[in-house]
Amino acid sequence: MNITNRLTALRELMVTTKVDAYFISNSDSHGTARIADYWRSLEWITGFTGSSGLAIITADKAALWTDGRYLIQAKQDLDGTGIEVLDIWEQGGRSHHIFLAENLPHGGKLGFDGHVIPAMRLDRFKTELKDKGITFSYDIDLIGELWRDRPALPSIRAFEHEICFAGMPASEKLAAVRAKMAEKKYAAYLITALDDIAWLLNIRGKDIPYLPVVYAYALITATDAHVFIEPNKAANVSGMLVSQGFELHNYNYLSHYLCKLDTGKLYYNPAITNIHISEAIPANIETESDQTGGIIPLIKAVKTETEQSNIVNAFRKDGIVFVKTLIWLDDMLKKDTPELQIRECDIAHTLENYRTMQPNYICESFPTISAYAENAAIAHYRPGPESTRLQREGLLLIDTGGQYLDGTTDTTRTVALGPITDEMKRNFTLVLKGHIALASAVFLSGTTGSGLDILARQNLWKSGQNFSHGTGHGLGYCLSVHEGPHFIAPYHTPIALTPGMLVSNEPGLYIEGSYGIRIENILLVVEEHKNDSGTYLSFKNLTHCPIDLNVIDIDMLTETEREWLNNYHHCTYETLSPYLSVSENAWLKNATRPI
Amino acid sequence: MNITNRLTALRELMVTTKVDAYFISNSDSHGTARIADYWRSLEWITGFTGSSGLAIITADKAALWTDGRYLIQAKQDLDGTGIEVLDIWEQGGRSHHIFLAENLPHGGKLGFDGHVIPAMRLDRFKTELKDKGITFSYDIDLIGELWRDRPALPSIRAFEHEICFAGMPASEKLAAVRAKMAEKKYAAYLITALDDIAWLLNIRGKDIPYLPVVYAYALITATDAHVFIEPNKAANVSGMLVSQGFELHNYNYLSHYLCKLDTGKLYYNPAITNIHISEAIPANIETESDQTGGIIPLIKAVKTETEQSNIVNAFRKDGIVFVKTLIWLDDMLKKDTPELQIRECDIAHTLENYRTMQPNYICESFPTISAYAENAAIAHYRPGPESTRLQREGLLLIDTGGQYLDGTTDTTRTVALGPITDEMKRNFTLVLKGHIALASAVFLSGTTGSGLDILARQNLWKSGQNFSHGTGHGLGYCLSVHEGPHFIAPYHTPIALTPGMLVSNEPGLYIEGSYGIRIENILLVVEEHKNDSGTYLSFKNLTHCPIDLNVIDIDMLTETEREWLNNYHHCTYETLSPYLSVSENAWLKNATRPI
Repeated sequence: MNITNRLTALRELMVTTKVDAYFISNSDSHGTARIADYWRSLEWITGFTGSSGLAIITADKAALWTDGRYLIQAKQDLDGTGIEVLDIWEQGGRSHHIFLAENLPHGGKLGFDGHVIPAMRLDRFKTELKDKGITFSYDIDLIGELWRDRPALPSIRAFEHEICFAGMPASEKLAAVRAKMAEKKYAAYLITALDDIAWLLNIRGKDIPYLPVVYAYALITATDAHVFIEPNKAANVSGMLVSQGFELHNYNYLSHYLCKLDTGKLYYNPAITNIHISEAIPANIETESDQTGGIIPLIKAVKTETEQSNIVNAFRKDGIVFVKTLIWLDDMLKKDTPELQIRECDIAHTLENYRTMQPNYICESFPTISAYAENAAIAHYRPGPESTRLQREGLLLIDTGGQYLDGTTDTTRTVALGPITDEMKRNFTLVLKGHIALASAVFLSGTTGSGLDILARQNLWKSGQNFSHGTGHGLGYCLSVHEGPHFIAPYHTPIALTPGMLVSNEPGLYIEGSYGIRIENILLVVEEHKNDSGTYLSFKNLTHCPIDLNVIDIDMLTETEREWLNNYHHCTYETLSPYLSVSENAWLKNATRPI
Repeated sequence: MNITNRLTALRELMVTTKVDAYFISNSDSHGTARIADYWRSLEWITGFTGSSGLAIITADKAALWTDGRYLIQAKQDLDGTGIEVLDIWEQGGRSHHIFLAENLPHGGKLGFDGHVIPAMRLDRFKTELKDKGITFSYDIDLIGELWRDRPALPSIRAFEHEICFAGMPASEKLAAVRAKMAEKKYAAYLITALDDIAWLLNIRGKDIPYLPVVYAYALITATDAHVFIEPNKAANVSGMLVSQGFELHNYNYLSHYLCKLDTGKLYYNPAITNIHISEAIPANIETESDQTGGIIPLIKAVKTETEQSNIVNAFRKDGIVFVKTLIWLDDMLKKDTPELQIRECDIAHTLENYRTMQPNYICESFPTISAYAENAAIAHYRPGPESTRLQREGLLLIDTGGQYLDGTTDTTRTVALGPITDEMKRNFTLVLKGHIALASAVFLSGTTGSGLDILARQNLWKSGQNFSHGTGHGLGYCLSVHEGPHFIAPYHTPIALTPGMLVSNEPGLYIEGSYGIRIENILLVVEEHKNDSGTYLSFKNLTHCPIDLNVIDIDMLTETEREWLNNYHHCTYETLSPYLSVSENAWLKNATRPI
């Protein structure tokens, strides 16, 4: 069945189910950023392969909304299908609501699969369409009915994140969560975020690419702790979970259980709780939500001492992997061939080869970005199998990370493959100055990422340049490579940076059609001074990987910046050299030489 | 009558008016930060002379709440009166509500003068005391009934802020306000802030010390513009106002007029609108408020081109005044007397002497802070007539400003009177580095003061030190020396800095019992670059006054910081020297020499 046939089949089904418009989005039942193949309904019905989008089909119209990163790709993917491609941020992000208002008849019916649409979206539909007398049908999955060769739901067994890695038994985490619940006067806490559940239960899995979690729910009260998970998936962890105070139920049993809930105030997050679940909450139960997404995100963001010391190992391993890859790249550059025989994707393969040799490695933490020359100026560039061939000039940007049992890593370096322009050097050095200013920041306890952001941008702004992404994101521990609730960016956040939090430091610069620069290390928030005037925090650098000295205009650095760089390189050499060969160390010694 | 007798008289009156507790605060009918003597009920009944406080009197108890700045002074002022002194910020700022809840009988009555208490405070009382069945009596002024020699309400006539200063006729300002009202769908706009009214009407007055405004209200609709002001006070401006489209009414007529209001949505600010006025708004009128305080604050904060070029003159004049005072101080220091014959208050007198010689000078914009040695570590220190005698050593902090028809100024300098310690030099240089970092900032359009604040503090924080006040406040134009809605501080503000806004740059450091440092210039927000990546803003320095080179540790400055200081001093000399004598210029030349 091609897309046209699929659309025809869907429209026939819409007639029999009396639905005037059908809504499809790229999501699973838990609002996870990455999804398993089972949930790719949007791709099946439209052919769109991007990670973020939604579509609406009516009897005579079809449209797909996505963001700036994927607009060009969507137009290519959907060419000839008759599906219009639109920018999701147009008309203040209301474009698809306006489409519905214009294309639904008064008193019409909007259908969608309530198992994958969050409660918050239904509320928004109700608000936006309140004048049109629309009804909603969300106990249907029309794509599921048509999709004959749909992939199965992931069924790989979960495994225990052992105590030497987790650092704290699940029962202790449960006690910490209950203490916070008591403080906030929550009688019950519904956990739908997969990384929150994996953290709480000390389990990991392989249900989702790049994110080592399993599909499950949890519902905690002062006395009970229920986990909803497929029995087969839980087979290897059920004994541990029961011993830690959890009661196990079938994954599908949550809504039946919720129906009978009879407690005081329930916390749940309507942004990542699907309608099927949220509708099961009895109307007489008082509910609450807040902008941090619940209790666990704030606890899990502050890494424990065991986690912190394990993370140091994970970053050392990933430093070794990156350095070995840079040495391999240098060898290729020096080979006596008229043209360089490697492509962007070979960088990713080489990184993966070296990573699989490291102990406790699971998988990449996201698809490696290896972007040469102008490709590096494209946000979210991902080399395909026929990726660009590298040349002995210009800049290569490598953004990569791994999932290890002892930590999640994420590092970006921009390296010269041969001669580069003075402009490239100048811009790289401006980005580096921002990186150094943030890395060496000292800040009063209570400071948020919005207060620090300018340190990373001030030098670029003085040159009339900017990068249009955040400066830093939080990081999971053998969990999501992007983890909240804190961040560093020029927009407001109420979340203060707290000792034990991890945050990336990744200023960049992107010259369209020409090149891209980004330097990313991961920082750990630590205490710096404490006295009568307050507690002052600073960052400890976790990432060990040389910053390419060939791309720096040394004259642009202040004495303090030069000292920072020399210290950073000295520390990188000291950390990695015990794990490298004599010849590798010779390379690293040169790459980390004082300037 | 002493305080004890006054309290007895008040309590007798409370019995006859059947009031269980009486509430008094330090405020006028408009929520103005400074008040005329007529409104000093709090001082009359308690003896407390500080500018910020509130008191509650019951049959057997009396308590006064003030903030950290005035706690010691309040305890001195109130000694022997039986009035307890409490910190207003204790118990999360709820201490006086808790006092009321504990001391009012169930179903009791709380009395206060609704003419000087804002609507927002009554709402807060209602929320905090909702379980106690309390009723409120606010059409009484018990202090007014007892206060026989109460000063009269100010009756000095308002004068026109002429077009050469105001830059734009009042009718044009009215049109601009109406355009914004239409945009925000306000049918009516009630203006209670005295500086907003003075700005709109192009009038000034002398009703309040340091703030050249007059008591008046305004109510604007799409077709009408009503001003409520005492006829005698308006005598010299009524012709102009009528010609500009305003209709004049008696000051007391506003509530009668409001009762009959019959329009669509009304904007008013309940934080500065007294209960007597807010209660007059008909219940069927839809009302709105927002955190910027209305339409005028945002328009008035962005200075017009005429205002900007006038302000340059005002700052040049105040620079001349400050330099002449520093020269006078230097002469005194060099005099052949064993002890220095001047006190802190002599600095303020000398500044005032020189200011009165400047064209278009009205009055100080706030009481000059001239604080020697450890006095400078006390926030809001104000030398009394028997102020501290200066010595030929240590640091003197001078914070002063003037009201001119062509602008409001505010400058702080910290100068050495002789030998100082290395620690003083080091700390002064850390403050200076923060001052320079903020003064030379470049920032993307949309950046708020919370995003810039760290530039002023980063060097202090690295040394484990902080200053516990904001970094910058807005400034009126021949209006309040502190004017919103923008500011620079480590806490969140949604207000972006916009070209045309004025903001102070005043990092400091206060070593209790020893000395205080502050360096304050006023900056104008201007456009720096504009290109595809965005519009970048920066600051233009308006303040011309040397920064004492004797207090700087030159080795701590970077090359860029030294250049900034040399440029600043060069520009100061160039700006002021045409207005100084040969000997004054010799002094200034030395004070602004390159380092």
